[in-house]
Amino acid sequence: METYRGRLKSGQLKLYALEQSLPPDEAVAVRRAFIEGETGASLATLGSYTIGIGQAVKKNCENMIGAVQVPVGVAGPLRVRGEYADGEWYIPLATTEGALVASVNRGCSAITRAGGAGVRILRDGMTRAPVFAARDVEHAKGIADWVDGHRDAIIAAAEATTSHGRLTDAVTIVTGTNVFVRLEFDTKDAMGMNMVTIASAKVADLIAEATGARLVALSGNMCTDKKPAAINLVRGRGRSVAAGVALSEALIHEVFKTDAATLAEVNMRKNLIGSARAGSLGFNAHAANIIAGIFIACGQDPAHVVEGSSAITTVDVTPGGVYVAVTLPSLPIGTVGGGTGLDTQRECLSLLGVAGGGTPPGSHARKFAEITGAAVLAGELSLLGALAAQHLARAHQALGRNK
Amino acid sequence: METYRGRLKSGQLKLYALEQSLPPDEAVAVRRAFIEGETGASLATLGSYTIGIGQAVKKNCENMIGAVQVPVGVAGPLRVRGEYADGEWYIPLATTEGALVASVNRGCSAITRAGGAGVRILRDGMTRAPVFAARDVEHAKGIADWVDGHRDAIIAAAEATTSHGRLTDAVTIVTGTNVFVRLEFDTKDAMGMNMVTIASAKVADLIAEATGARLVALSGNMCTDKKPAAINLVRGRGRSVAAGVALSEALIHEVFKTDAATLAEVNMRKNLIGSARAGSLGFNAHAANIIAGIFIACGQDPAHVVEGSSAITTVDVTPGGVYVAVTLPSLPIGTVGGGTGLDTQRECLSLLGVAGGGTPPGSHARKFAEITGAAVLAGELSLLGALAAQHLARAHQALGRNK
Amino acid sequence: METYRGRLKSGQLKLYALEQSLPPDEAVAVRRAFIEGETGASLATLGSYTIGIGQAVKKNCENMIGAVQVPVGVAGPLRVRGEYADGEWYIPLATTEGALVASVNRGCSAITRAGGAGVRILRDGMTRAPVFAARDVEHAKGIADWVDGHRDAIIAAAEATTSHGRLTDAVTIVTGTNVFVRLEFDTKDAMGMNMVTIASAKVADLIAEATGARLVALSGNMCTDKKPAAINLVRGRGRSVAAGVALSEALIHEVFKTDAATLAEVNMRKNLIGSARAGSLGFNAHAANIIAGIFIACGQDPAHVVEGSSAITTVDVTPGGVYVAVTLPSLPIGTVGGGTGLDTQRECLSLLGVAGGGTPPGSHARKFAEITGAAVLAGELSLLGALAAQHLARAHQALGRNK
Amino acid sequence: METYRGRLKSGQLKLYALEQSLPPDEAVAVRRAFIEGETGASLATLGSYTIGIGQAVKKNCENMIGAVQVPVGVAGPLRVRGEYADGEWYIPLATTEGALVASVNRGCSAITRAGGAGVRILRDGMTRAPVFAARDVEHAKGIADWVDGHRDAIIAAAEATTSHGRLTDAVTIVTGTNVFVRLEFDTKDAMGMNMVTIASAKVADLIAEATGARLVALSGNMCTDKKPAAINLVRGRGRSVAAGVALSEALIHEVFKTDAATLAEVNMRKNLIGSARAGSLGFNAHAANIIAGIFIACGQDPAHVVEGSSAITTVDVTPGGVYVAVTLPSLPIGTVGGGTGLDTQRECLSLLGVAGGGTPPGSHARKFAEITGAAVLAGELSLLGALAAQHLARAHQALGRNK
Repeated sequence: METYRGRLKSGQLKLYALEQSLPPDEAVAVRRAFIEGETGASLATLGSYTIGIGQAVKKNCENMIGAVQVPVGVAGPLRVRGEYADGEWYIPLATTEGALVASVNRGCSAITRAGGAGVRILRDGMTRAPVFAARDVEHAKGIADWVDGHRDAIIAAAEATTSHGRLTDAVTIVTGTNVFVRLEFDTKDAMGMNMVTIASAKVADLIAEATGARLVALSGNMCTDKKPAAINLVRGRGRSVAAGVALSEALIHEVFKTDAATLAEVNMRKNLIGSARAGSLGFNAHAANIIAGIFIACGQDPAHVVEGSSAITTVDVTPGGVYVAVTLPSLPIGTVGGGTGLDTQRECLSLLGVAGGGTPPGSHARKFAEITGAAVLAGELSLLGALAAQHLARAHQALGRNK
Repeated sequence: METYRGRLKSGQLKLYALEQSLPPDEAVAVRRAFIEGETGASLATLGSYTIGIGQAVKKNCENMIGAVQVPVGVAGPLRVRGEYADGEWYIPLATTEGALVASVNRGCSAITRAGGAGVRILRDGMTRAPVFAARDVEHAKGIADWVDGHRDAIIAAAEATTSHGRLTDAVTIVTGTNVFVRLEFDTKDAMGMNMVTIASAKVADLIAEATGARLVALSGNMCTDKKPAAINLVRGRGRSVAAGVALSEALIHEVFKTDAATLAEVNMRKNLIGSARAGSLGFNAHAANIIAGIFIACGQDPAHVVEGSSAITTVDVTPGGVYVAVTLPSLPIGTVGGGTGLDTQRECLSLLGVAGGGTPPGSHARKFAEITGAAVLAGELSLLGALAAQHLARAHQALGRNK
Repeated sequence: METYRGRLKSGQLKLYALEQSLPPDEAVAVRRAFIEGETGASLATLGSYTIGIGQAVKKNCENMIGAVQVPVGVAGPLRVRGEYADGEWYIPLATTEGALVASVNRGCSAITRAGGAGVRILRDGMTRAPVFAARDVEHAKGIADWVDGHRDAIIAAAEATTSHGRLTDAVTIVTGTNVFVRLEFDTKDAMGMNMVTIASAKVADLIAEATGARLVALSGNMCTDKKPAAINLVRGRGRSVAAGVALSEALIHEVFKTDAATLAEVNMRKNLIGSARAGSLGFNAHAANIIAGIFIACGQDPAHVVEGSSAITTVDVTPGGVYVAVTLPSLPIGTVGGGTGLDTQRECLSLLGVAGGGTPPGSHARKFAEITGAAVLAGELSLLGALAAQHLARAHQALGRNK
Repeated sequence: METYRGRLKSGQLKLYALEQSLPPDEAVAVRRAFIEGETGASLATLGSYTIGIGQAVKKNCENMIGAVQVPVGVAGPLRVRGEYADGEWYIPLATTEGALVASVNRGCSAITRAGGAGVRILRDGMTRAPVFAARDVEHAKGIADWVDGHRDAIIAAAEATTSHGRLTDAVTIVTGTNVFVRLEFDTKDAMGMNMVTIASAKVADLIAEATGARLVALSGNMCTDKKPAAINLVRGRGRSVAAGVALSEALIHEVFKTDAATLAEVNMRKNLIGSARAGSLGFNAHAANIIAGIFIACGQDPAHVVEGSSAITTVDVTPGGVYVAVTLPSLPIGTVGGGTGLDTQRECLSLLGVAGGGTPPGSHARKFAEITGAAVLAGELSLLGALAAQHLARAHQALGRNK
């Protein structure tokens, strides 16, 4: 090991090249030791991971020095009545934020007692939008027209790169000399950004050749990936999911110690009016908490918490209580690829019965999306209830951390 | 163990109550076994965590069943020239997205060779904004006036609840009968949401008593916490950080195989014009990737990736090359509290030399914020460079996952 | 007249009922006299209008007391190279803001000398989006599915109400129990909101009957009419227009006393980065000034300045100078209906050669849209040039008003 | 006249130079005749204006060829209970959109019968925000620090340019190398953009000299003027106004043929949820209609309809009915300067009792702002009521135009 450290130190050997001459665990150990030497930090626990990393060092993480361990708690059982998910589940949440699992758990309890959350997938399509430069607005219009008129050729180019994905739409948006082509795909059980990017590269080449458009960037931010964007609310991205539940006054009172009118008022003043005045794109209480918890547990891309959490929560007062719903227009989610193959992550997916590809293809990812939608509903319900009962601060004081 | 499972099954014992009668590791094991029995899933690796969980089950995660392990890679060394961070660091990134660490690493290399990233903290203040209901707009105005006129009493109420935090601002925003009071605090080394929530509860009580305002929710979404919101761009939240670096044409060519004009064009057409037309609040390439990687590694709240990543990336063409900068108006970050005390997370903070509270208080969190800003700059640079060189798809094909 | 005033005073006669018993001009005179009596204000000039009001009191303005006179100046000639407008025009601008006409005039001069503005209409469709209440998310999905599956019936219902309009799209957006159906129409030469509203009422009835959806409002703000909204940027509304022009360094220097690089820098720092950080949906300098000036002169609905002006201005540095473009995604404009039939307004439309319906239908409105796009380009160019040359304040001092 | 036309035709004489050698009315007549000759359009009615234009050709409109006449109707009486406006008013609305005056009139009737609208001005400050370029982020921070530390010098520079305005705030926002300084002023009875621009130029020079910042544009779009922008919602701009009224069930039923719950539901589903999902910055039904009508009648800048109309409408269900409010965070409005001095416009201001400067200074503009807020409330109430009663389409059919 000393030899390696010496060669790393001298620059003879590159840090990322260790896996070329050492088995994964040894490479990681050498790298970690080198970093410890450079920084003086002890990284012993980081190095005491127990997952297999043979694939990880190739597909998930370069320059690996170990693994961080994030506590996973469960909330549930949560009754879900979707088209793909129909039954009860325990929701795994990876989190370090005290009170979160307890809060979601309370929401699950209310939903399950109410007979379950109705869930529907409204749209399904992952996107990538290259941006091209045109010579002038006439040329830009010409490029857009070409795309509109050559759908079959575009589909052929895209689908030549993938055995799973299907190109379902190609929308053009022109801004001056900038031509954005938003390509949408059915990515089955994959979240699909990788598949979509590769297919889009092929389509971009085709468009450039046919029209003289100059490809500026394979992603032109009209996708929109990992940034909050109204286009994702308006057109949807990934799986668009809505989940809702009817709660009676009695149940509201018993579980949340509040009432229908107060729940509705909190939602209106906070989630609707507050977010409106704040110039927000998120009209919810804390969807990001649940999305982040599930995403980290289940090997999803945590940067997708950004758009995955742009939820709208609505509370309708009904004759006997309330109907509460969350809508997630833009949930990027999958059960194959990315971090889903790592041991602990795959176990969390197994807990939900959605590890790996489904039969038919896409059914696992959609089931996962439906369960996630219902879990976000549980989280929203619980926090709205807590706020309504003005219990938030007290809950934090009891379970909190940085007093 | 069987006894426990039977009592859990029958409902005699609540899942969350196990820690009351068992030591943490046993409680977690029993709970995991119960969940395995209920779902048929094997959760062995999830249970083979190696971190100490004595505090975790109390402060970080209820209903714990184990831990998910996320690979951590390092990018660097990264040279930073901030007011709190001046030196070189290896950046720990917890990720399952192939190519990310390699990409950030390339950016670090460019920055370090260019002499380092200049970084500045522009503002520093964590916020919570209760919403009150007024009787009418006259009353609403009266409440706002009272808040404006009683700053000392508000500070006293807030600071009675915390030995660390300092209330630095109280802004009122009236919308019809809704009065939002956005309280801002200096939270020193803590990210501070917890501290701020507790202090805000006290302030809210004071305002309600003095004015007859009815407290509707301790958070009125004008904070804005865990939702993308323009108010955070406009006023800042958490640490507002800017990082920048000047790159010569020669360095751009050598590291990124492109040139200054192309980098600038990609940034303009993608990050500025693309995001503008998409109705986005994020004018960057993939800040969320870096923020998520650092946040998960270092025990930050991953739901804060939402606002933490709302960055603006700018590229100025200069006589000899470019000056590239990222600005993060709203980075919630801390080195104490939350998940920062867990073994692996604390090691990642140690790697950056910022574990625990700093001297003087606040200096660790600010150093951490500066390093994070520089790391996001590295990530932006690298992706812009890759797009400029049209290498994105190729990189994904080589390192990707779900082909 | 005294009799009428007495009866108005006593409440026997309603102010709006005067036209039922008096010819238009007399009714207006009586009403004005009554208001003068009530308020003590002299409204003599308001009453000295010279337009015919026979139709106006029926179709344009209830409770009329006179007319306000807004000065109209001309800018031009402006050379336009569109698909509908190919030639040179003088642009009528109704305005009271000193320096505006002069500024647009300078922009026209630059464009015309450069050979004219290339203009293209990218999309064309006026929208109305009723909102329905569903029982739950399952029902909401069912309603959306019904709409997707019954396009022919929807078209038939819509087009039964109009001899001109054609329904071109019906997009459903579900949010909890809220189902928005965004109906898009080709409205030919009309701006079309009225036609579209009537047709949408019919479609809404059909959907309600077929699905059990409860119609809540004929406009659900997903249209989006007279509010700034990203959906209009993303999907377009009314006529979507782009106009651009290439300027040489010599011309920039001569007309604007600045250079290509400075123009580009002003646009990037102000229109792109400034608007981004401000959380704006308008990435331009002052498109609203030109839109308002043309709209008031030409009898358009001035409330449509809101979305009509949500322009994006782009400046590309080219080998010999710049290519400057404006894109107006959402320009509601027409040459028949609304205020287009009033004497002075029709004269302004005549000045542009677009009064009344075109042959074929739609060609006048599109020609008008192209000219308007080019005029906005002239305005943007001129203000960017003025800012670049730091002449803004000086121009205001010379031509301004409220010193 | 022929001589002039010949010289104009030949280019010897510039169109804008006519006023230098002719009295205003003659210059306008010659110019109009020339344009008629060039275009073949008859502009007789445009030329038959009856207002005095001696000042207009100097201060309001260059290249004048006549005036457009816009019908003015009145709605009212409207009872207002503000701090500046306490009484009843007839609201002048310049419009060509059938049904608008009638609709506002119905809203006025409801408000007045309910005892009047309570109105409050929440903030008051007109802004201009120059953008400077810094060398790097360290320099940018230095510039911001200088501004924060030299408030007195900035005030002195600003106020040297105006006898009326007072600089009340200077906020810095840094984005990479872009430093925006948002200067806020009390502009008394003026809308004030002109005053503020001139003062800002002086301040910009001071900052540039003292810090080495390079002034890029006197307006950096952080103002934000004539573009929809969240910063104006968050910080306010111009006069920030809220108006509200309590309506009983009986009154709702009588005037609007609907009930409290339905009004509240329409507002929630349309103005809150619809606008949220549309990515809108306007959470109202049609505030722009009323703002445009009043602005054109009263000589305000109609391009300011953009931000002036970014209202939030709220409906609270109360024990006996509803409390409806509108909040206009960003209403640019004045009673001196701009178009307020034109004959017909001044008469409309007189109708409201706010022509010219008030005593004390600012009181007229504030009174005008309060009345405008109440008028927008009337408009919102009426359209919400019409939608609630599903009367919208019918109203359009009866009063509409382009059937």
